[in-house]
Formats: sequence, C-alpha cells, structure tokens
Amino acid sequence: MHDVIFESDTPAGWTFDVGLLIAILCSISVISLETIPSIAKQELFVLEAIEWLLTILFSIEYVARLVCARHPLRYAFSFWGIVDLLSILPTYIGFFFVPQNQTRSFAILRSIRLLRAFRVLKLWRMMSDADELWHAVWNARHKIIVFLIVVMVAVTISGTLMYFVETIVPALVAGVRPEQYDSRFDSIPQAMYWAIVTMTTVGYGDIVPTTTTGKVISATLILLGYSLIIVPSGFVTAELSSRSESEKRTGDSCPRCATDEHLVGAIYCHRCGERLGRSHQDSEDPLRKDS
Amino acid sequence: MHDVIFESDTPAGWTFDVGLLIAILCSISVISLETIPSIAKQELFVLEAIEWLLTILFSIEYVARLVCARHPLRYAFSFWGIVDLLSILPTYIGFFFVPQNQTRSFAILRSIRLLRAFRVLKLWRMMSDADELWHAVWNARHKIIVFLIVVMVAVTISGTLMYFVETIVPALVAGVRPEQYDSRFDSIPQAMYWAIVTMTTVGYGDIVPTTTTGKVISATLILLGYSLIIVPSGFVTAELSSRSESEKRTGDSCPRCATDEHLVGAIYCHRCGERLGRSHQDSEDPLRKDS
Amino acid sequence: MHDVIFESDTPAGWTFDVGLLIAILCSISVISLETIPSIAKQELFVLEAIEWLLTILFSIEYVARLVCARHPLRYAFSFWGIVDLLSILPTYIGFFFVPQNQTRSFAILRSIRLLRAFRVLKLWRMMSDADELWHAVWNARHKIIVFLIVVMVAVTISGTLMYFVETIVPALVAGVRPEQYDSRFDSIPQAMYWAIVTMTTVGYGDIVPTTTTGKVISATLILLGYSLIIVPSGFVTAELSSRSESEKRTGDSCPRCATDEHLVGAIYCHRCGERLGRSHQDSEDPLRKDS
Amino acid sequence: MHDVIFESDTPAGWTFDVGLLIAILCSISVISLETIPSIAKQELFVLEAIEWLLTILFSIEYVARLVCARHPLRYAFSFWGIVDLLSILPTYIGFFFVPQNQTRSFAILRSIRLLRAFRVLKLWRMMSDADELWHAVWNARHKIIVFLIVVMVAVTISGTLMYFVETIVPALVAGVRPEQYDSRFDSIPQAMYWAIVTMTTVGYGDIVPTTTTGKVISATLILLGYSLIIVPSGFVTAELSSRSESEKRTGDSCPRCATDEHLVGAIYCHRCGERLGRSHQDSEDPLRKDS
Repeated sequence: MHDVIFESDTPAGWTFDVGLLIAILCSISVISLETIPSIAKQELFVLEAIEWLLTILFSIEYVARLVCARHPLRYAFSFWGIVDLLSILPTYIGFFFVPQNQTRSFAILRSIRLLRAFRVLKLWRMMSDADELWHAVWNARHKIIVFLIVVMVAVTISGTLMYFVETIVPALVAGVRPEQYDSRFDSIPQAMYWAIVTMTTVGYGDIVPTTTTGKVISATLILLGYSLIIVPSGFVTAELSSRSESEKRTGDSCPRCATDEHLVGAIYCHRCGERLGRSHQDSEDPLRKDS
Repeated sequence: MHDVIFESDTPAGWTFDVGLLIAILCSISVISLETIPSIAKQELFVLEAIEWLLTILFSIEYVARLVCARHPLRYAFSFWGIVDLLSILPTYIGFFFVPQNQTRSFAILRSIRLLRAFRVLKLWRMMSDADELWHAVWNARHKIIVFLIVVMVAVTISGTLMYFVETIVPALVAGVRPEQYDSRFDSIPQAMYWAIVTMTTVGYGDIVPTTTTGKVISATLILLGYSLIIVPSGFVTAELSSRSESEKRTGDSCPRCATDEHLVGAIYCHRCGERLGRSHQDSEDPLRKDS
Repeated sequence: MHDVIFESDTPAGWTFDVGLLIAILCSISVISLETIPSIAKQELFVLEAIEWLLTILFSIEYVARLVCARHPLRYAFSFWGIVDLLSILPTYIGFFFVPQNQTRSFAILRSIRLLRAFRVLKLWRMMSDADELWHAVWNARHKIIVFLIVVMVAVTISGTLMYFVETIVPALVAGVRPEQYDSRFDSIPQAMYWAIVTMTTVGYGDIVPTTTTGKVISATLILLGYSLIIVPSGFVTAELSSRSESEKRTGDSCPRCATDEHLVGAIYCHRCGERLGRSHQDSEDPLRKDS
Repeated sequence: MHDVIFESDTPAGWTFDVGLLIAILCSISVISLETIPSIAKQELFVLEAIEWLLTILFSIEYVARLVCARHPLRYAFSFWGIVDLLSILPTYIGFFFVPQNQTRSFAILRSIRLLRAFRVLKLWRMMSDADELWHAVWNARHKIIVFLIVVMVAVTISGTLMYFVETIVPALVAGVRPEQYDSRFDSIPQAMYWAIVTMTTVGYGDIVPTTTTGKVISATLILLGYSLIIVPSGFVTAELSSRSESEKRTGDSCPRCATDEHLVGAIYCHRCGERLGRSHQDSEDPLRKDS
C-alpha cells in the first residue's frame, strides 16, 4: 500500500496518482465555479456534492499517507504533508465554524498539490529543469535582494515626489488642506502603489498624473524606472547563459585526484597534472614524449 | 502545371505565387473591412464581389493543387492542404447555410497561407532562421512547461487571495453575502483573469484592487509575478546565445596538442602551429611550401 | 567658412555647432509649447517671434551650407540636406498657404537634426556604439522579419477570434445584427488593434473582453502572445552577446598571410601556421624546438 | 564612541546600527501613514509624537557623527552627511516655518539611509554585487545615452504625428480651431507623454487614439517602439553575461604550450600537463611528489 501511495512506478501507483491529479483539477474547478454567482445559484447542490465527495477522498488519502508513511510525524510536518492537510481543512472549518462558509475557497490551496503532478507525468527531467531554474534564481539571490532594496527606495522617493506634485502643491494653490483636495494620489502609500504598478510597466491607469508637472516628472520616472526594472531580467538571463555555458564542460573525472570539472578537450587534469584517460587520446601524445 | 503551382523556381511559378500572395492579402483586407459598419454599408456590394471572385479563384487553385499533386490524398490531409481548404470553406458555408453570413469572417484563416510567402519571396534563409527560432523554443520546451505549471499555480493562488481580500472580507464587513457585494473581483476565475493580465504586465485596468489591503497585496504580487515572468525570456535568450556561440567554433582537435577550440576554417593549430588534418585541406598548401 | 559650418574641429566650428544645437532645442520647445492652449493664448506673440527668428536663422544656415558645400546638389539631396530643408519649410508653408497655420508643427522635424549633436559633443565613440547597435539589429533583420510576419498572422487570427467571441456570438444570442450590437470589438481591424496593444503588453484597457469566454480566450492569447513577444528581445540580446564575445579576439594580424582574426592567446596563425610576433612570446617556445 | 557610530564590527556598533535601521523604517512608515486622511484624523497625536521622537534621535545622531568624525567638515559635505542632514531638516522647517506643515513628508528622504542597511546586515557581498551591477550599467553608459537620444527623437516625432492625426486633422474636418477641439492629445507635450507611456509598455490608457487613422499609426508605433525599447535590456544582459563569463577564466598562460584558458584555480595546464607557475602555488604539491 505504501508503494501505491508514495511511488508511481507500479501500475497501481501510477493509476492512483493520475486519479489523484484528476481529482485535484476537478476540485479546483469546482471551487472556482462555486464563486460565480450565476452558476452557484443553479448548480450549488451539485457543486457542493462533488466538493464534499472530493474532500472526503482527500481526507482518506491523507490518513492513508499518515498510516503508510515510514515516519508519520516527519511526513506530517514535511512540506507536502502540510500542503495535504491545508488542502482539506478549509472545507471542514467552513462547514463547522463559518455559517456563510466563505473559508472553503481556501481549499484552492490544493492547486499547490498539482506540482506533485510532475511525479506522475514522469517529468523527472522537468523537475531537474525546475531545479536548474531555481538554482539560477538562487545564485542571483544577492543581486535580487540588492535590487529589491534599491527598488523600494526608488518607489518610496518617487511615490513621495508624485504625492507632492499631484496633491500637496495643487492643494496649496487651491488653498485647501491636502486631505480635502481631491486627487488620485491621496496618500504616500497610494503613490507608492502607483510607483510599483508603473515601474513594472503594468500601468493599470486607475491612478494617473493629471497636472502638467506630474506628467513631466512621471514620464522621467517611467524612463528611469524602466532602465531600473530591466536589470534583474539581465541577471537571470546572464545566470542561465553561464549555466548553459558551463554545461559545455566534461564530466570526466581525473583518475588520480578525482577532480571532475575539466574544460572540453582537456588532456591533463588541471589539479594534479595526471593524464585523463580518454579513449580517443590513447594514441601516445607528442607533448609528453619530449618532457 | 505541377511546377507552376508547387514550385516557384520557374518564372511562371514565381508569377503564380506572387499573384497568389497578392490575392491573399486582398482577401484578408476585404474580410476585415467588411466588418467595419460604416464601410460595410456603402461598399458592401464591391467588397462581396471581390470576396466572391477571390474565393472562386482560391477554389480553382485548390482543385488544381489536388489534381496536380503527385499524392492528392497526402496533400489533402497535409497541413497546407487543410489550411487551403479551410480558407475557402467559410465563404461557401456562410452563403449556403448561414443567412446572416457571419461565418465568412472565418475565411481570415487565409492569413495562415501568408506563411507560404516565405517560399515566394525566396526567404529560404528566413525559414532557416525560423527553424533556429523554433529549435530554441523547442529545446526550452521542458523549462517552458514547468514554467507554465508554476505560473498557473501562482495565478490560481494569487487570484483566490485577491478574491478574498477584495470581495469576501469587505462583504463580511458590510454584512452582505459575497455575491451581493459589488466588486470587480466578483469570482475566482475573474480574479485569475486579473492575475494573468497583471503578471504579464499587460495591466488593462478594467479590474483593479480598491481596498488598501488589496493594493498592498497586489503590489507584492506584481513584484513577485514580475520576477517570475522574466524567467522564460531568460531561457530563450540563453538558448539562442549558446546556439550562436557554438556556431563559432569547430570541434576539430589538433593532432599534436589536442587543442580543439579552433575558429571555423582554421588550417593550422593556433597553439602549436601543427597542420590540422582535415579532409578538405589535404590538397597541399602553397603557404607551407615556401617555409 | 566651409570648415566653420561642416567641421567642428576649429573653435569657430565648435561654437557654431553648439549654437546650432541650442537653437534646435529652443525651437523644438517653442513649437511644443505653442500647442498648449493656455500658454499659446498669453505668450503667442513671443513664441511666434522666437519661432520666426529661429526659422530665418536656419534658412540662412541652409543657404550657407548650399553655398559652401563642395557639391551643393549632392548635399541638397543627401539625407541631412533633406532634413535641413524639411525643418524650415513647414513654417513658411504654414505662413503663406495655411491661414490657420497648423502645418508649422511639422517643423518638429528639426528634432531629427539633434542626431547631428553627436558630432558637436565629440561623441564619436557613441556613434560607434550606435553603429554597433545598428549592426546588431541589422544582423538579426531576417529573424525580425520572420518574427513580424508571424506576429501579424497571430494578430490577424486572434483578432478575428476575439471579434467572433465578443461581437458575433453575443449578437446572434441577442438576435441583432453584429453592427447593431454594442461591443468594444466592433470590427476585425479594431480587434487587431486590441491584439497588438495586448501582445506588446501595453494594455491600454480601452478595449477589454467583457464576456466570460472572451476573458478565457484572451487570457490564453495573452500568455501565448507573451511567449511570442519575448523572442525578438532574445535575438537582439544573443546578437549583442556574441558581438561582445567576438570582441575578445585579438586584432593582431599574421606577418605572412595577414589574417587578423585570432583567438586571444593564439601563438600560430590558424591560416598559414606562421608564428605571430608578439612581444610577450619572444621568449623561445618549447613546442617549436622539437619540430 | 567613533567606532560605535561609524563601525558595525563591535557588538555596540552593531546594536547601534540595527537600532538606527529600525528607527528609519519606523519613521518612514509613520510619515507615510500620516498622509492617509482616515488614519491621520484618529492617530495624528501618536504619529506626531513618534515622528518628533525619531527626529530628535536622528538630530542627536547627526550631531554625534559631526563630533566623532575625524574630519567633521568632510563628513558634513559627504554624500551620507548631506543625506543625514536632509533627513532631519524637513521636520524642523515644517514646524517653524510652514504652518500647514506639508514639507515634513520630505523627511521620507530618510529612506535613502536604508541603503546604509547594507553595512549593518553584513551585506558586503551584496554591495559588491551592487558594484558589479553599477559597472555593468556604467560600461553600457554610452550605448544608453545614444539610446536615450534616439528614444527622445522617436518620442518627439511620434508624439507630433499623433497630435496631428488625433487633433489637428479632426479639428480641420470639424472646422474648429485645434484648441477648441476636444481630444486627449490636446498638445504636443501631452502626445509626447503618451508616446513615452506607450513605448515603455506602461500603457495607462488615460490617453488613447480614438480615430481609425490614429489607431493604425499607434499600432505601428507600438510595434516599432517595442523593438526599440528591448534594445537596452539586451545591452545590459550582454554586459552582465560577458562579465560572469570572464570571471570563470584566468588569464594565466601555460609556460610550455601557452594555453591561457584555464579554469580558476587550475594548477596544471589541461593541454600539456605542465605545472602553471603561480605565486600562490609555489608551495610544492603532494600529488606531484608521488609521480
């Protein structure tokens, strides 16, 4: 039974995992559809039925995992264990404690379990790609933190600047207090929200400069922000490039010191000078002779 | 006749293809213009005439292709064969079955045939570039799939989160049921649509957070989403870089010092001056003689 | 006088060019300001005076260039000659022929002359960078054309698709003719405009899907379009990377066959095997001895 | 005392810096919150109290820095000195001179001091990353300037073009003067603001083309602008890639075969097995002995 649940190599295990995957997708769609008033009205009973059915199935599965797991506690507090628990709790909580039952939508956390799909779909290779991706981001983490701090400072300052140009100044001109003056930039946090929406080039347009000065300044900030925001993408790309670059190295390891990172075409270990045994180089080597 | 239709090397074939290309462009513009009410009113007759003329021409061409093709069936079920058929069917269907004749716009599928233009315009080289492009995308396909799954999970979760912050919570505060509460995030699918529009930095602005909490959270999600969305572009770029990189080196290694990083077309090893043994260079080399 | 106008090496020539640059900047600001109603009302006379003064100066300069140029005709029909002419014509045309004098704004073409500033500011190096940039784009031109054709096909098809989902279908459901049905996607060209605005992630929000189906489809199109639109940036980056890569080669040319593209650290010419004379390699070379 | 304030190696200094950091974060939040009308009304007294407390603390710190600094004047006019001063002045100015006390928000300049956090958080490594980032941008500065000039010219021209298509032409058709004609593109500067917002793909949507011609032209401009705007990101990425690339190789060349592409830390040439003469490896090498 342990194999069926935790492995997907056996036919049974594979069937189990695929079924689980479908169940997760169903329940996510159900939870989503339930929130659409028009649908909720007509189909509520059907949806709730499916929802409950799935929740019970997931509960059984969770218990089964706990039972089968070699280290139940370790599983219970592992990432997947917590996700599995969180993905069933909301429905119960919603049922027992919240009459209006809104919390159930939290069950959407099940979507995280989709990542488990990787195992089912035999996407080992994908996972390794995901790892690579993660490493790329991880290697660039320091750069990203520096970048985020710089961005936050830029957002704070440009937000304050816009708040002044768009609210304080016009208010002074109009002779009213800023809080009475009607402006979209009605506070610094609001202006910072604008700055983030603008710098990432999302640009909703719900908050836009209206004064001429405001437009001039925001045009400048947009150009500066744009030059700022393209940087992290450069970092990630550079990181990924250098990775694909380093893949050009050979994995051959030195027979003496076992160093295994050699440039392509290396004949001698760059650590200990030992000759690397490669079939196509068994032909004796002129350089070595004269030494 | 086969050559005229399927090849573009002969003058006749070239003329045919260019004519075809122009015909396709015309018909696309016509179909587009027909949908503009103001134009449709005045010019309807002219447009319909052109449209019918072109459709008949395309039908004749299709029949001709079927007749000339060495393997009519294989052509009929090939990609181009199906496109050719789909590009004439809508007009007939629209005429015979749909009185209001809306389906005709489907004839816009003809635009796909424009890709055939590559052949006409002697853009073989472009096609090879297109291949390269396709390979770059293809090599990164696993990464892209992983990425899409991660994106969908992120979209689902952030959508649900925003639905809660923008609809459920305010509704509870206002003491009404969520479906009665007026909010732009009126369902989880709607919120997921918002999440996609936001993460890709399209940012229409038709759905925007209105509560303070909603703005704070969406600002965070925007920054996270932005860092997430720049990744695939990094992958494609890295892929393309490594391709253009590897095109610059040969794998041939020097017989004496085994240096294998030579510029394309190198005759002598740039390390030890040894002659590189390459079939196409066995002809003795004048420069060498005089030394 | 020729030197003063066409060269900027002499002090006089430099002063002339800087003055010209300032004049151009002034006139651009003036022309822009003239279009702002509030300003135009009060300052119209002043602005017009400056504008006329500058136009006359530019006319004198143009005549002077014609006179001094070694080949007046060649200058007159050169790129810069035409730009110089176009930058003064509008004001006169506006004055003599167009009473309401709108054409004058065309004088904004003067901004093109700012590119001449490079010469003044001794930005030769920048120009070379601009060349490099241009070459990068030029080398990727085939890819870019392929890309544009693909984009146009994608835009046409997705535009038509959205036109159907957002206008035709609802119209049929409502039982009215499409042109009577009120929708933002009121024609295929309009929908194509939406597709371009969306795929480039500009996302004005003036045209947005309103039906559920429309939102689902456009969400998909956005993700597809995004993956499509990141490609050219990948091409340009790859091109630029490989350029900065190839800069790592040495410019040293072989004393015998004058090949001048060698890998950094090459000792022997990869074309003729001749030893490359480099100071730091004059120390005799073990490899050479044993041959 | 000098160490406590200027260094963060001693426990005391570290505590001081962390406290300072927290104080800065507090005061920024306070200043931001003060601008939110709803909060300002209720909590004004509390917020002002905290604000004054922090300002006085910062003043004391500033004086202390002046006193402890080895070269008080040099500190006073250093970047950090000026920032420290500017971060306390606004509150006093607001108190003594401006009754409505708006200037205080300028105290948000304190956020710049957050960059000092790097020192506290022992983020030396991050700082070096920031340097690298800065160098990457700095190396690409000429390209960026060229790019900005080109962008400004493009913005000016496309802005003027849109102003004509959207305002002048319709006004002439309607037979009214442009300033009377109601259009979103009501002046060239306004149109230039639109051009910048559009080219950077921010796309607020507060100014959008309404005429058919305007839409066609802006669709073209968007595509052109997009191809233009992806270039600098390409430059930065290429710069970063080549940096991370060059960090992987040493310039040391092998004394025998002059191969100079060795992995960092290589002891023996990977081509000919010769020992690479490097100062930090002169200590004899155990591996070598046993051969």
